[in-house]
Amino acid sequence: MPRPEKLALPPGAVGTQSSLFRPVIQSMDGYVPGEQPRDRRYIKLNTNENPYPPSPRVLEALRAAVDDDLRLYPDPEATELRARASEIYGVPADGILAGNGSDDLLTMLFRACVASGDGSVAYAVPTYSLYDTLALIQDAEPRTVPYPRSFALPVDALVALEARLTIVCNPNSPSGTLAPLSAIQDLAQRSRGLVVVDEAYVDFASESALSLLPSCPNLAVLRTFSKSFSLAGMRIGLAFASPDVIRELHKVKDSYNLDRLSLVAARAALDDYAWMQANTAKVRASRDQLIAELGALGFRVLPSESNFVFAESPILGGEELYQRLRAEGILVRHFSRPELRAGVRITVGTPEANRALLTALATFATR
Amino acid sequence: MPRPEKLALPPGAVGTQSSLFRPVIQSMDGYVPGEQPRDRRYIKLNTNENPYPPSPRVLEALRAAVDDDLRLYPDPEATELRARASEIYGVPADGILAGNGSDDLLTMLFRACVASGDGSVAYAVPTYSLYDTLALIQDAEPRTVPYPRSFALPVDALVALEARLTIVCNPNSPSGTLAPLSAIQDLAQRSRGLVVVDEAYVDFASESALSLLPSCPNLAVLRTFSKSFSLAGMRIGLAFASPDVIRELHKVKDSYNLDRLSLVAARAALDDYAWMQANTAKVRASRDQLIAELGALGFRVLPSESNFVFAESPILGGEELYQRLRAEGILVRHFSRPELRAGVRITVGTPEANRALLTALATFATR
Repeated sequence: MPRPEKLALPPGAVGTQSSLFRPVIQSMDGYVPGEQPRDRRYIKLNTNENPYPPSPRVLEALRAAVDDDLRLYPDPEATELRARASEIYGVPADGILAGNGSDDLLTMLFRACVASGDGSVAYAVPTYSLYDTLALIQDAEPRTVPYPRSFALPVDALVALEARLTIVCNPNSPSGTLAPLSAIQDLAQRSRGLVVVDEAYVDFASESALSLLPSCPNLAVLRTFSKSFSLAGMRIGLAFASPDVIRELHKVKDSYNLDRLSLVAARAALDDYAWMQANTAKVRASRDQLIAELGALGFRVLPSESNFVFAESPILGGEELYQRLRAEGILVRHFSRPELRAGVRITVGTPEANRALLTALATFATR
Repeated sequence: MPRPEKLALPPGAVGTQSSLFRPVIQSMDGYVPGEQPRDRRYIKLNTNENPYPPSPRVLEALRAAVDDDLRLYPDPEATELRARASEIYGVPADGILAGNGSDDLLTMLFRACVASGDGSVAYAVPTYSLYDTLALIQDAEPRTVPYPRSFALPVDALVALEARLTIVCNPNSPSGTLAPLSAIQDLAQRSRGLVVVDEAYVDFASESALSLLPSCPNLAVLRTFSKSFSLAGMRIGLAFASPDVIRELHKVKDSYNLDRLSLVAARAALDDYAWMQANTAKVRASRDQLIAELGALGFRVLPSESNFVFAESPILGGEELYQRLRAEGILVRHFSRPELRAGVRITVGTPEANRALLTALATFATR
């Protein structure tokens, strides 16, 4: 087929054809991910990436897998990855599902569980705002409960909502706080619906809900390789649940949701689990130091068990703090929700990046 | 965090908790993709992969991109890929959306356009059965029109259904037949909803609907890199439409739907467009020869403008044909739908693979 001629679409050509889409789609805004600047000179502390590189064994495995077999479809069942994950995490392989990032797994959960307008999804807020977007796409009104200022998990209020799907981001974003295992267990045991613990940041925390799976058949746990395994660029997530739950989620999974190279990267990353553990240990140490130094500058900082901290300047609002740091070449994340607008979320970087941040803050964001 | 102990889930633990999922999900079967055997000795003519490898420039670009930057998120907007695709296909970059395979783009279209039970999606059958699955997930009853035995596109019947979303797989799968551009144009101009032409196989055909975009603002065209670009393993698709349509689809797109390496592979593949053209030319020549030889063996073969043929043996049913070929180490695809069960879909392979197929068929599938 010859290449077509250069075309020019008439401006506003479908401006009047609003009936092409579902009304809820037309009226909604899409989810806005954190800024991914193309200018590499920024100190990037805005999207919770790991400051340390992925394992050299991942890179070696990837290079070795770049061959003519890329012409063939990937394994739609991620069989080898799930087998390796089963060994590492101690969950049977038929209780594991691989996703194109944990966002893909969240999408499956919403499509499988959340129906139009019936209050079928619940969570405490503020939390990962993608949940709002995914609920909207399902034409559902999420039932939300406010977190108290301490960010203790409001278990009673969540149970009372009786949602088909209850989500807890744990550690929570953007607060960084961790609900203890006892609260998660209490929530799962008292909920009639599915309880999903989104553990994107759990490798930086002190405990995980994975150990509750055998006793809580309505529990699902999500993990991502984006943060602790330093593989945000490869889009890999895992869901752990009972085989009955996984079977239903599988029905709404895109057949070939992970490409061949992501499958290879994921397996290799699990093969070098110690690399991840060493990096998360470094990040945790830097995080604790960062919290202490921010406190010394007069910032209010929430206790964090993640790879980021939520901090409020004693003299600047969150938006101003974000802008001033940006002008200094440091990107952090600001959220405009009322409960969050006073502060910013700061990803823990290398010691050098954290030092640059603190130096900047000391000059303009403290008394 | 220490690795958790080995767990054992109680069997059938959530067997009674059927209220965890939407009723439509519980009652449906998932989409079943073609078999991806791990035994590499099969001659694999079942999932329409390209028998020729991807461009060496793609492999080089991938190897060069395997570096520490994999710790960072990919560009959620696929900016560079869309810019390159704009140059190649002559469509403005804001009229292009990248997908994790064209299946991901189909998912976006269904989520954006198809609502529960309102007959909002229509297509002629038999066609790509994923459309049925995606409609079911939206709790929608698709309105379908039977293709005539010639597989001429039933434009009048499709227009009369007045669906919000009308899909034409063109060339169609599993028939391999092509609806002429005039029929697509007629359908788009007379339809009030969105008309999507799924051109997964169009690089093996004589014409594409891309040229209709400027005059048909309700038209969208889908492409995949899985077939013609020999990159099924990397999950890359592109949607072309008016910027107004793309903007709505973007709202239901997973933020980081393509990983860093898929984005690199896609750009490099477009940079070596001539490689794809040379491979598709070889496949087309092999296809035409295969059709002629199958005809000489007494098979009924539909005219194909794709990289596969739909063929019926003069003496064996489709299921038996599939099983006999499988026993000979040759995988083809059989579909159990009544209109399709008499034949099999055969992917065009290398001349050697096609020769092995014909030799086998000559021994047991002809008079």
